[in-house]
Amino acid sequence: MTVKSFDGLWTAIEPVGRDGRTGGYRRFAWTGEDATLREWFAGEAAARGLDLVVDRAGNQWAWWGDPDSAGPAGGVVVGSHLDSVPDGGAYDGPLGVVSAFAALNALRAEGFEPDRPIGVVNFVDEEGARFGVACAGSRIITGALDADRARGLRDGDGIAMAEAMARAGHDPAGVGPDPETLRRVGVFVELHVEQGRGLVDLGRPVAVGSSIWPHGRWRLELLGEANHAGTTRLADRRDPMLTLAAAVTTAREAAAARGCVATIGKVRVEPNGVNAIPSAVHAWLDARGPHEPDVRAVVDEVANASGGIGAAEESFTAETVFSAELRDRLATLLGDAPVLGTGAGHDAGILAAAGVPTAMLFVRNPTGVSHSPAEHASREDCLAGVAALARVVGDLAGRQNLAGRAE
Amino acid sequence: MTVKSFDGLWTAIEPVGRDGRTGGYRRFAWTGEDATLREWFAGEAAARGLDLVVDRAGNQWAWWGDPDSAGPAGGVVVGSHLDSVPDGGAYDGPLGVVSAFAALNALRAEGFEPDRPIGVVNFVDEEGARFGVACAGSRIITGALDADRARGLRDGDGIAMAEAMARAGHDPAGVGPDPETLRRVGVFVELHVEQGRGLVDLGRPVAVGSSIWPHGRWRLELLGEANHAGTTRLADRRDPMLTLAAAVTTAREAAAARGCVATIGKVRVEPNGVNAIPSAVHAWLDARGPHEPDVRAVVDEVANASGGIGAAEESFTAETVFSAELRDRLATLLGDAPVLGTGAGHDAGILAAAGVPTAMLFVRNPTGVSHSPAEHASREDCLAGVAALARVVGDLAGRQNLAGRAE
Repeated sequence: MTVKSFDGLWTAIEPVGRDGRTGGYRRFAWTGEDATLREWFAGEAAARGLDLVVDRAGNQWAWWGDPDSAGPAGGVVVGSHLDSVPDGGAYDGPLGVVSAFAALNALRAEGFEPDRPIGVVNFVDEEGARFGVACAGSRIITGALDADRARGLRDGDGIAMAEAMARAGHDPAGVGPDPETLRRVGVFVELHVEQGRGLVDLGRPVAVGSSIWPHGRWRLELLGEANHAGTTRLADRRDPMLTLAAAVTTAREAAAARGCVATIGKVRVEPNGVNAIPSAVHAWLDARGPHEPDVRAVVDEVANASGGIGAAEESFTAETVFSAELRDRLATLLGDAPVLGTGAGHDAGILAAAGVPTAMLFVRNPTGVSHSPAEHASREDCLAGVAALARVVGDLAGRQNLAGRAE
Repeated sequence: MTVKSFDGLWTAIEPVGRDGRTGGYRRFAWTGEDATLREWFAGEAAARGLDLVVDRAGNQWAWWGDPDSAGPAGGVVVGSHLDSVPDGGAYDGPLGVVSAFAALNALRAEGFEPDRPIGVVNFVDEEGARFGVACAGSRIITGALDADRARGLRDGDGIAMAEAMARAGHDPAGVGPDPETLRRVGVFVELHVEQGRGLVDLGRPVAVGSSIWPHGRWRLELLGEANHAGTTRLADRRDPMLTLAAAVTTAREAAAARGCVATIGKVRVEPNGVNAIPSAVHAWLDARGPHEPDVRAVVDEVANASGGIGAAEESFTAETVFSAELRDRLATLLGDAPVLGTGAGHDAGILAAAGVPTAMLFVRNPTGVSHSPAEHASREDCLAGVAALARVVGDLAGRQNLAGRAE
């Protein structure tokens, strides 16, 4: 088996889960598409002589060198995820995994001999598109997502995560915190396509991450009374679609006033008939911003506009600040690379919150568009990302550079 | 086989297609539930010695007497439909069919011998819940719905009406206008649960219909740009959920200002992800009112509020005024019964528009709620409806009362 270059790696996974109509990706956790991508990951690990380990949540780790040989210092891990949102782009997640393998190629081509084990990770179910909880794979192993709750999460067809895992060949009984796996991660660097225009505005190809905004998801249960659309007087109606309209408008206005972003991107209407006033509208609110009190105030305003029924918190992640020491070290190493925050959640944030020294690299996105088929990064910038990642790994895994917990 | 009374008829179909969770009905055209109801109809026809005829659209007609024996005067037809909207009530449709059989029981118990053939009809697919076009069965036989268009209509799973018919044992090749069937209908009287509170306010159990408001369905294609909900600046967004909010609010305000009703009860969001700004929202607008120019103005205002993209008309039915002569005759016969208009479309409206002398009877609905599991009529009022219908049929089918085309 030949070892594939960045282009070869990219081309191999490009068709998997791609919708011919929209050009977007539908790569959801524990589906057939996911299985294809996991097989691809295992194959690339084998082609490089890496040892594959699957942890209790189902995340895949490919190790160059014995991951237990570094003792408390742990290894240097790079990677990201391979799943997507519905109709997502090609880069969000896969760019980090492909770049990790390509960075290993580059280091080996230079004859680099690591002094610490190096791992490539594929976190399962980062987007939470199927079961509703983002970063499920990293949350499970850090204990941030309870094992029983995870097993019981259901997809739109009513299939529980436990059943989906079992069908895909992963034992759900073993799901739970995995300190042994985490102990091996001395430092984690996640490369990701930028989901904004920070680098475009700065004219630079690669940035170092500083922090992840506080962010969460809330569910609004807007209740009304089903009735005939043609015969019910306006005064007699309790139409929850009007409540949805108020919630959507308020979310935008409150977010604008408080320097946050807020989105209602998912809606389910009952019974969803053309000639029936709905009995209920279920809506999901995503809200984020630099300051947690502002985010909470936006959610409160939306809940009040929805008739004061309250918003049920499905998940919330406080601000995550990546290791300042690591951030400064990487920025310097990469020629004073710019430092950017982000409103997007990542597995890197989950690991950082669990005490793992963590950093992120962002690759320029010419339109800033993400979670869309239009998401893009130029080949040149992708290769610049690979070079940056190789340089970072070479630095962190060299003998004189024991970054991470042991420092 | 014994001939069932109103209660026996009602009890036999009550469980068919009932959702145990909501208590509402899911009886869609050409499904298993529909087949069960059609078998029930055929069985009740047989139990009464009626001759069953299925027309080109699949509507079922049960005749007491040879339907071709009346010549150009035609027969007296009563009945309604057995399908439902999603999570619909028990009465909308079935009350008219059950009352028709029960009225025949009552006439026979009196020893009534008709001078004209009497028919009971079950119109197929009145609600259009599965294929999107209301009154499909009556529109097909009158030619108001083109046969090829009907055959090609698809349900939410992509199944064409032709395929659904074929699976249910009805030959789609024969679908089309059916003048022979229509010629037999000298007069049609549809009894229906009231979908409003007109009779409650008047303190009366039964009314005669006067007209059906102009009404239609329009589709709004609200386009935006998919993007990440956490990282896209508010100023950079093109979020079609905001356009939906404007459309919903405008529909209510414009309808209130113009004495109409307008409803957005069905919405489909793409990609419908919690953390993705939608790329598109598809919304359906139902608008009705006493005056067509007002209805059209409401639709125009909603389209303008949706960014001026226009609203695609899926169906529109001009005002239907039932036969004034028949209306007055029935109101007098029923002791000066009140006369009420309605915003709901019915097969009676389609037949009236095709030139068939047509009338409607409404039975009191204590809450006015329809298209909902809460839809109701008291047993006492239902029996009053049966008595009124028997009286009307006895009058119209007696020798001295040749109502209909021949007059």
